[in-house]
Amino acid sequence: MTGFSFTIEARDGAARAGRARTGHGGFATPAFMPVGTAGAVKAMTPDGVAATGAGIVLANTYHLMLRPGAEQVARLGGLRRFMAWPGPVLTDSGGYQVMSLAKLRVLGEDGVEFQSHLDGARHMLTPERAIEIQHALDSTITMVLDECTAFPATEAEAAASMRLSMRWAARCKAAFAPRPGYALFGIAQGGMYADLRAESVAALTEIGFDGYAIGGLAVGEGPELMRDMTARTTALLPEVAPRYLMGVGRPGDIVEAVARGVDMFDCVLPTRSGRNGQAFTRRGTVNLRNARHADDPRPLDDACACPACRGYSRAYLHHLIKANEILASMLLTWHNLRWYQDLMRELRAAICDGRLAAYQARFHEMEAQGDIAAL
Amino acid sequence: MTGFSFTIEARDGAARAGRARTGHGGFATPAFMPVGTAGAVKAMTPDGVAATGAGIVLANTYHLMLRPGAEQVARLGGLRRFMAWPGPVLTDSGGYQVMSLAKLRVLGEDGVEFQSHLDGARHMLTPERAIEIQHALDSTITMVLDECTAFPATEAEAAASMRLSMRWAARCKAAFAPRPGYALFGIAQGGMYADLRAESVAALTEIGFDGYAIGGLAVGEGPELMRDMTARTTALLPEVAPRYLMGVGRPGDIVEAVARGVDMFDCVLPTRSGRNGQAFTRRGTVNLRNARHADDPRPLDDACACPACRGYSRAYLHHLIKANEILASMLLTWHNLRWYQDLMRELRAAICDGRLAAYQARFHEMEAQGDIAAL
Repeated sequence: MTGFSFTIEARDGAARAGRARTGHGGFATPAFMPVGTAGAVKAMTPDGVAATGAGIVLANTYHLMLRPGAEQVARLGGLRRFMAWPGPVLTDSGGYQVMSLAKLRVLGEDGVEFQSHLDGARHMLTPERAIEIQHALDSTITMVLDECTAFPATEAEAAASMRLSMRWAARCKAAFAPRPGYALFGIAQGGMYADLRAESVAALTEIGFDGYAIGGLAVGEGPELMRDMTARTTALLPEVAPRYLMGVGRPGDIVEAVARGVDMFDCVLPTRSGRNGQAFTRRGTVNLRNARHADDPRPLDDACACPACRGYSRAYLHHLIKANEILASMLLTWHNLRWYQDLMRELRAAICDGRLAAYQARFHEMEAQGDIAAL
Repeated sequence: MTGFSFTIEARDGAARAGRARTGHGGFATPAFMPVGTAGAVKAMTPDGVAATGAGIVLANTYHLMLRPGAEQVARLGGLRRFMAWPGPVLTDSGGYQVMSLAKLRVLGEDGVEFQSHLDGARHMLTPERAIEIQHALDSTITMVLDECTAFPATEAEAAASMRLSMRWAARCKAAFAPRPGYALFGIAQGGMYADLRAESVAALTEIGFDGYAIGGLAVGEGPELMRDMTARTTALLPEVAPRYLMGVGRPGDIVEAVARGVDMFDCVLPTRSGRNGQAFTRRGTVNLRNARHADDPRPLDDACACPACRGYSRAYLHHLIKANEILASMLLTWHNLRWYQDLMRELRAAICDGRLAAYQARFHEMEAQGDIAAL
């Protein structure tokens, strides 16, 4: 079994192009992880996900612990075998969805008690149980249990929340069984307070993790503050460990975060948007449900090599959406995931060539142009 | 452009193994046509459909005339280009769905006036318009407009309905523009009255078509009567033209119809069932929504080479269904279409080897066994 490692192959300013190796395969960074919430990337086969260029996928501990259950997945050979994804899998801790989806949450020092949104059954998620669940899932990269600090929060609220997360992080580290090829990532919190972010990073690095995530951003603070907090946090994080900005995000946010030293991302945006008829292109998002596409024989994006852009017209994609055809979700999800992976490859190439600043400028310029004119 | 032709390569009793050639590619018979109602086989890409072994697909004139509209499809290069299916396409005439889906139908000698089930707009479908629409769609095989006789019907009702369909068939033949590689099929009606079926076949062969469909069966008459009417009709049809039993059906019905001389089939059953968690196997249907599969690490069908059976456990398929994942529809539709195509290949091989009777007996014996025992 190959051990877990992360090497930086090129730098451009604060940005890094790296390579992570795990016991389940490696992936280049900057990396975008498609979200496979319930053990499936929605509307995609694993072969399709791999064909878009993704080297690692994310799955949600909250969903899997409730259905089919972590021990059930373990009996069936672990999550990777269960979902037929041969590469590495990162699982979140479940904490975020407990706060956003579950009912009757009671948070205390020990953990969080909640009721399932599926059947109302009571569950307790503690740092130790979060680690145990992810072990049962056989996750390649395990995330610590944390509390995603609400926004806005006073400094006192953000401090108390962050310090609870740091105590939980220490308990997660103690509960985690190190295995070659597997990794445990800590999560920095601290709200929008730079001093608290610094305190959080100090606490995490003191405990020691294989990688470091930045949590509690993209919660409504706006792009400027998100970029500032990201830059302040990455500046303090260890150089030689991967950095993961959780739940981000829009393509422009990813470009800016990469420029500020982030290596890994996940977001439901490409998959969810695909199911809603929205496609990402170099020239911003395109809503294919719009009637302007009904007669358009042109491909969605003539620079894209995905099946949706190679085989079909905008008119056909529009028709599929109007007719509620599952194929619309399949094709647009594929396109969006491919587009995100193309973005990551371009960012990596720009870093390796030392031209990231020019790439950033060109990216935002193109995106601002908007879609090609109607025929 | 290759002309339309049909050759019989082997016979076994009344059954035939043949090959159809069209301007858009050929297909072996007995053939099952997956249904692509609105210009897409639900939950499948065209590549996937082809990979199951299908050589021809069916699309519904009724749906396409209402959305996006036949002339719209024509402007976009015809249906095959629109849906990126390079092979032949058969379209029905729209008549069946007008009677089953549309509102406020008024049937007369000239045709049928109806309101769209989508937006209430009034439309008129005549034999000439049905042909014109299918021409605009660039259908490889065009079906005549007919009235699917209700069941039950008195002999007088069935006769009047059949004779109207025969007058419409003659008008369709007159309206159809023969082109090399394209074909026009007539449809025999006559309810459950053998004399009327004979009269219908005589009328159709007098007009002369490239192929002959058997309509008005699988409407509630039961398997015995369906088989009897099928056998009586095929016995009268020209030997050298393909015979198409419309809307059939269940695997066992297909086996019996092939034995009675039918060459072509279509049915929504494999695709619709796939979206409902039901899978076809040699040992009958399997409802993967059933809790008995929740812990089952075995493949759906260990003899099947489709992606659903190669990569996943029954437990995972069950999980996907419970979690309402689109991937459940994708995998089970693929399996079912592959299973239907495997059935057609086996029937063809049995005919070529002169062992169809043994195959029939073995088929029904296996199907009666039911699914493998729970673990």
